[in-house]
Amino acid sequence: MAQGDSPPPCKYFNLTYPLPFVAHVEINRPEKLNAFTDAVWAELPPLFSHLSTSPSTRAIILSGAGTKAFTTGLDVQAFSSPSSALNPQATSKLDTARTAQYLRRHIDDFQAAITSIEKCSKPVIAAINGWCLGLGIDISVCADVRICAKDTRFAVKEVDIGLAADIGTLSRLPKVVGNGSWVKDVCLTARIFTASEAESVGFVSWVGKTGGKEEVISEALRIAEVMASKSPVAVQSTKELLNWSWSRSVEDGLRYTSVWNSAALQSEDVMESVKSGMEKRKARFAKL
Amino acid sequence: MAQGDSPPPCKYFNLTYPLPFVAHVEINRPEKLNAFTDAVWAELPPLFSHLSTSPSTRAIILSGAGTKAFTTGLDVQAFSSPSSALNPQATSKLDTARTAQYLRRHIDDFQAAITSIEKCSKPVIAAINGWCLGLGIDISVCADVRICAKDTRFAVKEVDIGLAADIGTLSRLPKVVGNGSWVKDVCLTARIFTASEAESVGFVSWVGKTGGKEEVISEALRIAEVMASKSPVAVQSTKELLNWSWSRSVEDGLRYTSVWNSAALQSEDVMESVKSGMEKRKARFAKL
Amino acid sequence: MAQGDSPPPCKYFNLTYPLPFVAHVEINRPEKLNAFTDAVWAELPPLFSHLSTSPSTRAIILSGAGTKAFTTGLDVQAFSSPSSALNPQATSKLDTARTAQYLRRHIDDFQAAITSIEKCSKPVIAAINGWCLGLGIDISVCADVRICAKDTRFAVKEVDIGLAADIGTLSRLPKVVGNGSWVKDVCLTARIFTASEAESVGFVSWVGKTGGKEEVISEALRIAEVMASKSPVAVQSTKELLNWSWSRSVEDGLRYTSVWNSAALQSEDVMESVKSGMEKRKARFAKL
Amino acid sequence: MAQGDSPPPCKYFNLTYPLPFVAHVEINRPEKLNAFTDAVWAELPPLFSHLSTSPSTRAIILSGAGTKAFTTGLDVQAFSSPSSALNPQATSKLDTARTAQYLRRHIDDFQAAITSIEKCSKPVIAAINGWCLGLGIDISVCADVRICAKDTRFAVKEVDIGLAADIGTLSRLPKVVGNGSWVKDVCLTARIFTASEAESVGFVSWVGKTGGKEEVISEALRIAEVMASKSPVAVQSTKELLNWSWSRSVEDGLRYTSVWNSAALQSEDVMESVKSGMEKRKARFAKL
Amino acid sequence: MAQGDSPPPCKYFNLTYPLPFVAHVEINRPEKLNAFTDAVWAELPPLFSHLSTSPSTRAIILSGAGTKAFTTGLDVQAFSSPSSALNPQATSKLDTARTAQYLRRHIDDFQAAITSIEKCSKPVIAAINGWCLGLGIDISVCADVRICAKDTRFAVKEVDIGLAADIGTLSRLPKVVGNGSWVKDVCLTARIFTASEAESVGFVSWVGKTGGKEEVISEALRIAEVMASKSPVAVQSTKELLNWSWSRSVEDGLRYTSVWNSAALQSEDVMESVKSGMEKRKARFAKL
Amino acid sequence: MAQGDSPPPCKYFNLTYPLPFVAHVEINRPEKLNAFTDAVWAELPPLFSHLSTSPSTRAIILSGAGTKAFTTGLDVQAFSSPSSALNPQATSKLDTARTAQYLRRHIDDFQAAITSIEKCSKPVIAAINGWCLGLGIDISVCADVRICAKDTRFAVKEVDIGLAADIGTLSRLPKVVGNGSWVKDVCLTARIFTASEAESVGFVSWVGKTGGKEEVISEALRIAEVMASKSPVAVQSTKELLNWSWSRSVEDGLRYTSVWNSAALQSEDVMESVKSGMEKRKARFAKL
Repeated sequence: MAQGDSPPPCKYFNLTYPLPFVAHVEINRPEKLNAFTDAVWAELPPLFSHLSTSPSTRAIILSGAGTKAFTTGLDVQAFSSPSSALNPQATSKLDTARTAQYLRRHIDDFQAAITSIEKCSKPVIAAINGWCLGLGIDISVCADVRICAKDTRFAVKEVDIGLAADIGTLSRLPKVVGNGSWVKDVCLTARIFTASEAESVGFVSWVGKTGGKEEVISEALRIAEVMASKSPVAVQSTKELLNWSWSRSVEDGLRYTSVWNSAALQSEDVMESVKSGMEKRKARFAKL
Repeated sequence: MAQGDSPPPCKYFNLTYPLPFVAHVEINRPEKLNAFTDAVWAELPPLFSHLSTSPSTRAIILSGAGTKAFTTGLDVQAFSSPSSALNPQATSKLDTARTAQYLRRHIDDFQAAITSIEKCSKPVIAAINGWCLGLGIDISVCADVRICAKDTRFAVKEVDIGLAADIGTLSRLPKVVGNGSWVKDVCLTARIFTASEAESVGFVSWVGKTGGKEEVISEALRIAEVMASKSPVAVQSTKELLNWSWSRSVEDGLRYTSVWNSAALQSEDVMESVKSGMEKRKARFAKL
Repeated sequence: MAQGDSPPPCKYFNLTYPLPFVAHVEINRPEKLNAFTDAVWAELPPLFSHLSTSPSTRAIILSGAGTKAFTTGLDVQAFSSPSSALNPQATSKLDTARTAQYLRRHIDDFQAAITSIEKCSKPVIAAINGWCLGLGIDISVCADVRICAKDTRFAVKEVDIGLAADIGTLSRLPKVVGNGSWVKDVCLTARIFTASEAESVGFVSWVGKTGGKEEVISEALRIAEVMASKSPVAVQSTKELLNWSWSRSVEDGLRYTSVWNSAALQSEDVMESVKSGMEKRKARFAKL
Repeated sequence: MAQGDSPPPCKYFNLTYPLPFVAHVEINRPEKLNAFTDAVWAELPPLFSHLSTSPSTRAIILSGAGTKAFTTGLDVQAFSSPSSALNPQATSKLDTARTAQYLRRHIDDFQAAITSIEKCSKPVIAAINGWCLGLGIDISVCADVRICAKDTRFAVKEVDIGLAADIGTLSRLPKVVGNGSWVKDVCLTARIFTASEAESVGFVSWVGKTGGKEEVISEALRIAEVMASKSPVAVQSTKELLNWSWSRSVEDGLRYTSVWNSAALQSEDVMESVKSGMEKRKARFAKL
Repeated sequence: MAQGDSPPPCKYFNLTYPLPFVAHVEINRPEKLNAFTDAVWAELPPLFSHLSTSPSTRAIILSGAGTKAFTTGLDVQAFSSPSSALNPQATSKLDTARTAQYLRRHIDDFQAAITSIEKCSKPVIAAINGWCLGLGIDISVCADVRICAKDTRFAVKEVDIGLAADIGTLSRLPKVVGNGSWVKDVCLTARIFTASEAESVGFVSWVGKTGGKEEVISEALRIAEVMASKSPVAVQSTKELLNWSWSRSVEDGLRYTSVWNSAALQSEDVMESVKSGMEKRKARFAKL
Repeated sequence: MAQGDSPPPCKYFNLTYPLPFVAHVEINRPEKLNAFTDAVWAELPPLFSHLSTSPSTRAIILSGAGTKAFTTGLDVQAFSSPSSALNPQATSKLDTARTAQYLRRHIDDFQAAITSIEKCSKPVIAAINGWCLGLGIDISVCADVRICAKDTRFAVKEVDIGLAADIGTLSRLPKVVGNGSWVKDVCLTARIFTASEAESVGFVSWVGKTGGKEEVISEALRIAEVMASKSPVAVQSTKELLNWSWSRSVEDGLRYTSVWNSAALQSEDVMESVKSGMEKRKARFAKL
């Protein structure tokens, strides 16, 4: 890590650099299957905000600690505790409209926390194994690339606890999976789906052969290493331009692209990429 | 069915309740392969408008009566009759601009009829078998989930009668199937495609093993039963939020979601869902 | 070809009519694997603008001349020449903001050239074999239908030369392929992907069985012939309505469709299509 | 009125034809200052739907019966009655989320009723005098032209009864008045504003000189007569194209316009307009 | 004018440079009150495309030659000639749908011609006097600044010839004038409005005191000279960012702005502007 | 102020409560005419974020300390200091694309700071006097209501320092002022405009009679007091719904409104507002 480029202190996330420029973030609450409490998700935005501008980081792997789960989602116990903003009991003495205002603020904050993964300027690879439920889906669809172990079990779990997913799944899943019928099916039934189903509908782009977490991390490292070896200007521009275009018309996507590249093309990385390619050597790029 | 919760009289649609809270709507003109005349589609909006607010209904199956077809689409004979709004002969003495105005009104009405399926607040499962042509596709892409029998035959038939599909296929198909090349192919050639092709491109999310209508209805009942067992607040919210987000940016989807859930989260269904889960019993929800 | 319906002179594109109403455009620089120089892409807009209004043309096949490539993309040698607008050396003495303005104009022109394929009112079938790199992807995603030979090799190559693709891939690929994880993977790593991978994620809708260019052209001819046999009003309307809806909400798609069809439905093609179908004869349509 | 062109029966609206092709709609509950109960607004959609397609109608004047008010808005007494959907008491035993669902349906219906004025294909001139409060503003901003008597008193009254206007004012007022500061001021304070203030900020385009209702009706008739003397194709197209463009980008406005006019320009009205102008005679147009 | 910076030959437009960097374009058909034939508008795009990139040009004045009119709009005689695309007689033998297609192409071309003024990267000041009818409004609303003589007479004339304005007025007028009632009034009645009315509703931002063309040109020169004295990077960026934001949400406007300025702020013009301001001298900027 | 409701410490902003529930924020750097350095704008987001949720605050007045200026905008000296992110010298050794990335991040942060005023859920009244330049306009257009002293002098000053305004003016000014020609004029010339001009074009909604700051603050207090006396649910909902609709279509505005109000209408404030009105007493609302 570069000097003066130090991450925020985290209790619920491990941050390591297994390869040059490749960060590995682990959701670190394995004894609870990496379930999220308020304290967990509060650490997410400063961490990804740091990674977004850290010059030591060009690609990020996101996985769950331990071998059993990426994450099982919201910690239901914490969620039903008296102090939880989402606990109806906790707010029941308030006027309905005021309760609504507090809930809206809470959801907005929660959405913003998860969105910090999407807004992170470096590509994020979700390396998923074991259980990936509820919030696990919200997080996965914010990542750029999703790969998983053969024995992963997924579910858009929210209707099972009486609510519609509100941290991102319903806004992003239809845009990253091109099978509307399947999206509605899994969101409306909360049923479990397997790795192979996830692959066949296009929710993940790679599934491990043997099962277990190790080969997923290994594949994630392989992909991350490739991304980290390319021009950071090119890689970060590509992520941004894809994210912008995804939500907008082709016309607006094209125009935004030409404005963006009017600065990005003036990078020395272009010549370095071309030259290093001709000279069959590894390219060296300035930090970003 | 709840008292005072009576459906509008229908000649061309059967409405039954094979399971608690599960409605089954059959397009009922089997002798004409369930082809649509003006009289048929006029019954659609009041029926789905009723189901949308009927507290006895939590999930809906839509299928074609008989064993031969979901629907073969517009009834071409009726369509070429002197009284049809779409018959050029019928309007040919009028000024072109005035004819255009009448046609626009007619298409708008027709679109609104089909859209009533999409706007219905309860999930709709299209259980398709036999022929599913033209208008059959327009209707299917309005449904939330699409499943079909092994021997189903589909076609976006409209170019074969000299026109571009205008009741919804061209607006919705690109959003529910993530294979742009295939969408253009089937829309521009009007060729027939099979159940297995439909599954591989993501147009349907389940195909029967043995062929025939029975197993499709059986699978539809299984899915509908699951949906009907969940909190109606959660299920109806999920449908609405997915439909809104599908057409809009991620940002606008997220915000709409937090506003929507600021009321929905105050439901007693949340506690009932969590509790019944812990107590391993079936949840009981108030009507909606 | 109809009298007075003559195409613009082209050096880098061959234009032939292998079947009635079916145009075949070949990118014609086989000795350079059909790589694009400024001179090549300058010929594209007048050619597709001609085809768009040529009454002799109802469907278009686009392929690469020779057997080795659809196109390998930008000609890197030309691109690094002193006179290239994209060569940083060439503009380095200018103020950064002024350079940005010139680059923007250049990219806008380049985008418009490629977009002429999308705007062409006749359907375009990209028949791809051999190498399809960089610009080849930008062009393919502008086409309506994409099919390829078994041994085709694709790559969204741009990050390898230090830049984000800016001629259309990043705006269009997420809309035509419904696997967000895969889209990000191939765009951020620039890795090669195969025909069978392209088929499984929905980038192409057909892959040849035996390999080689011949069977791809043969399949393209088959599809084009079908499209060319239908009402040109219906086919061109269908392309336009799909393209409009792809970038917009369902509501705006439906309304645009009813306005469009208020004129299109007044076509004699409707009656001719219905009649010829009943009489089991080939339909004859006026030119368009 | 043309034969077979009969309006729906109305208790709370008067419909007269003071001039050929000019309809005059009066809100007819003068003893209650034309305040709206559920029964009043229920009559609005069928009436404007009729006028939208009535060939006897080319321009519409909308005013309040009596001399005291256009309308004072929602009838507060009716609104606080036990049976009102908006009465919190009436729904207080229900689950919050279910109450929200019923309220949403009610607001959607109410909005649709008011929107029927905007969707009416004929131009609507709001001729306002006396009190124009709350719902009166919602209705006025749906009309195409707003004129008023010198002594009219307006207010966006809703915050005074503890709610945000939800029938259209907050969505339409910012689009029809180009003074954002004034819009926020009157919506957030619920203060009364005068005719001359309304004119100076652009909320109305004409104010009477002497006060009283008569001269407003007289000016409305003058404007309506001019509109009714023009080609109905031209007038109705102009209303539609303005309404569409108001909510969309210039690019989408232009494209919709060219598609719309591709049918509208084929009208005989063009030649009749040009000819009658040259021959200095009144134009005669077919009905629409 | 810079060497090698030569404008396209024009018959119907005069181009002069009354001040350094200030171009003056005159619509030059005074004997016909500057009415537009096909030949006139065909010259518009190449002329404004040239000015857009001409380094000798930093601000543009657009006026009508002679003293009687800015322009009276479409030349009605030319318009009713047998060869006009808009003449119904000329196309009446064609199928309605085909005629629609030809009309659409014609309108699209016509719109694009007028839009070249909006797309021109340099600011355009419409200096209007005498008659400004129909097409004159379409052109004016494409300009950035509109000023006029005291005795100017305006009308959105199109409904008088049986059609809805389709070259831009209906898409742009609601965005540049904040008085929706007035916009609908003048568009639906085709009535004449005066300079002082135009000023009071915000259609023009300056009206002459004495009448006549001379003082309008003089004021236009004054404004243009100021614009031409500022950094061309700053001025052209400002025009572009305003035009983009006008049609889009605040959020999308802000993001586009930060991307644009990430290149524009790297201009030497910033330091030169600040320095010259401190040194109380005229700034000198590189060409653009 | 409520207990436990304490504002963040501020050096450059004064916060007082001149009336119950009415906060007064003063930009507090009068010796520098309230010019902004990085340190000044860094304090803005935590302050307005606090006010947004502070139950003691129902309306906010924003003004400049001292009698000479609201603010003269960016502190040019600070801006040209070696450490400023906007100083080209400071970043000139970096790659152009990397500099662009840093500038983009800086502008995004700066925009977000200013946007915190718009996002604040309580209404903000800008009470402007003296100089209001550059950044002063960016801030003003984020406020809900703008009023000013008779002798205020405004300018969209940015082109004078060689750049396009990028903190919000170009995105918001066209939406709050309905005179497109005037907006372009003042943005492209950077000329000074007066209070009376600001009023006539609709940039401010009130101008003092006598000059000086005192009467502006007095009017601001009057307006704020009215807003603070109304239901906070109604007022905050109205601000949010207007802001959302401003950037979106009427259709999307209406739907968002009905979803929002489905919770807000369940407030006790509705009954309290109606009752207190009938009982002619001041309403008492729970905190929000």
